[in-house]
Amino acid sequence: MFREKIKVFDCTVRDGGLINDHDFSFEFVRAVYSALSAAGVDYMEIGYRNSKKLFSASEYGPWKFCEDDIINRVIEGIPSKTKISVMADIGRVDPADVKPKKESPVSMIRVASYVKDIDKAIRLVNEFHDKGYETTVNIMAITKALDNELNEALDQLERESKADVIYVVDSFGFLYQETTEFLIKKVKSILKTKEVGFHGHNNQQLAFANTIEAIIHNANYLDATVYGIGRAAGNCPLELLLGFLKNPKFDIRPVLDLISKEFIPLRDKIEWGYIIPYAIAGMFNTHPKEAIALRESDKKEDYREFYESFIDVEEE
Amino acid sequence: MFREKIKVFDCTVRDGGLINDHDFSFEFVRAVYSALSAAGVDYMEIGYRNSKKLFSASEYGPWKFCEDDIINRVIEGIPSKTKISVMADIGRVDPADVKPKKESPVSMIRVASYVKDIDKAIRLVNEFHDKGYETTVNIMAITKALDNELNEALDQLERESKADVIYVVDSFGFLYQETTEFLIKKVKSILKTKEVGFHGHNNQQLAFANTIEAIIHNANYLDATVYGIGRAAGNCPLELLLGFLKNPKFDIRPVLDLISKEFIPLRDKIEWGYIIPYAIAGMFNTHPKEAIALRESDKKEDYREFYESFIDVEEE
Repeated sequence: MFREKIKVFDCTVRDGGLINDHDFSFEFVRAVYSALSAAGVDYMEIGYRNSKKLFSASEYGPWKFCEDDIINRVIEGIPSKTKISVMADIGRVDPADVKPKKESPVSMIRVASYVKDIDKAIRLVNEFHDKGYETTVNIMAITKALDNELNEALDQLERESKADVIYVVDSFGFLYQETTEFLIKKVKSILKTKEVGFHGHNNQQLAFANTIEAIIHNANYLDATVYGIGRAAGNCPLELLLGFLKNPKFDIRPVLDLISKEFIPLRDKIEWGYIIPYAIAGMFNTHPKEAIALRESDKKEDYREFYESFIDVEEE
Repeated sequence: MFREKIKVFDCTVRDGGLINDHDFSFEFVRAVYSALSAAGVDYMEIGYRNSKKLFSASEYGPWKFCEDDIINRVIEGIPSKTKISVMADIGRVDPADVKPKKESPVSMIRVASYVKDIDKAIRLVNEFHDKGYETTVNIMAITKALDNELNEALDQLERESKADVIYVVDSFGFLYQETTEFLIKKVKSILKTKEVGFHGHNNQQLAFANTIEAIIHNANYLDATVYGIGRAAGNCPLELLLGFLKNPKFDIRPVLDLISKEFIPLRDKIEWGYIIPYAIAGMFNTHPKEAIALRESDKKEDYREFYESFIDVEEE
């Protein structure tokens, strides 16, 4: 019943960090690692590996930098087969901050890239590969890419990159199942030597459904977050994905405990999930930044005006 | 781009009434009717047509009975092409309460039935049909039906019933897309002379995704509710469905206004939506009653224990 190659990839602390300046407490991150380890989750992305030359450590929490020392303290003493991943944004990472794999607790580095930056992504990912890491390239905002440009980028990734996995990233929560199928099939057809992954956003309550669709069409790397936490509408809820997958190595119960103890109180302090302005942004295939600004204003529930602001733009 | 036969069917007041004893204010129901009319929604189900001989009018609000008089007052003076529907539960409706269609503001009567009650449903639906109403049979808890029994029921519905539409109802929010496809295709293949409908529940954030799946496989009657309101996890959110459909007759904006003004304050008073015990009930293909009881207890956030209560049952 299950496909052994499937890897469940948790982004809770990394994507969730986008709503609190990466300022989760050390104890919280350790609780997440502990629960994911007990649940049998394959990977935990603990944050970004950004350069402290570019961002101030006084303005952001430690999970924006994810230095090896703090990761070592998070994982210390917890029995686990869960591998640690960090994300590297093009132009925000200093490769000198990345030691060879054998000196680091990190197993995987994921490079997030727009189609237009694919040459930079390939150079970066190859460098991390050569240092011994598992690597991915995550194609952000793929629903904005023109077909010919996407085809060329995929072709380059297949020929030139050493990445193990190429991800389809529905950055704006725009995808319906049919287009998810189209994109996953396209990537599979060009990336003959690599695995394919999927990262959904939940603007239209379709992150989990699109992840299932990706599974059906043979994506094997599946991103999710505990209780769907993540910027704006958030992501595919890890607990739903574990409920769906049949591999007996997974145990949903530690994740349920984690939600009870940590995420219910957290949700009272920071906002994510099904919120109409994020749904609208998803329908229009657009970045959530305007919706995030709206939610911080006194017009936070003025949905019609917000919706009409996109129609006006479309008519230009 | 659009399929003209598609009908959007709103169940806001009917399914939402299950969480407040059908006690919405008259003004609220009129605001819903007004918004749905302006949005171009095809049908509004305003409640149940239950018998006052069986239920006390002092214990329930008027939308449990939906007498023609109150419906006339709801719709009076509002320009509208939205048809009114009521639901009839087997054994709870007195056919004597149903006047001929030409004397009533109601256009459609939907009979909700389990597979085991299909003979009763057919008798009832034929009686309503003969009085001049559009009719449906909604097969509840279809994910619990054994295949041979479901096949026989569908065969009977095709041969013996005068219903216009047969609905697949995912009462427990258990369906994933592949099983939705299987069921819709099965119903379409047997019900050659009737339309097929889909009513999802949102336990696993899949009500909208399963509705899309049903559309892909030619279901034309699509249930939804404003902001997903409904018992427990609720239903497919109407605003998402309208955002997906391309028929220019629909306008999402009156629904957005309605959410801003009525549903955001309402959600602070009554609970529905993505709540872990409902997700767990969905995973186990079970009625939400235990989860509803849990939410009313002091163990409302004790998810692991709740999850394990289903494993124990399964091992019996």
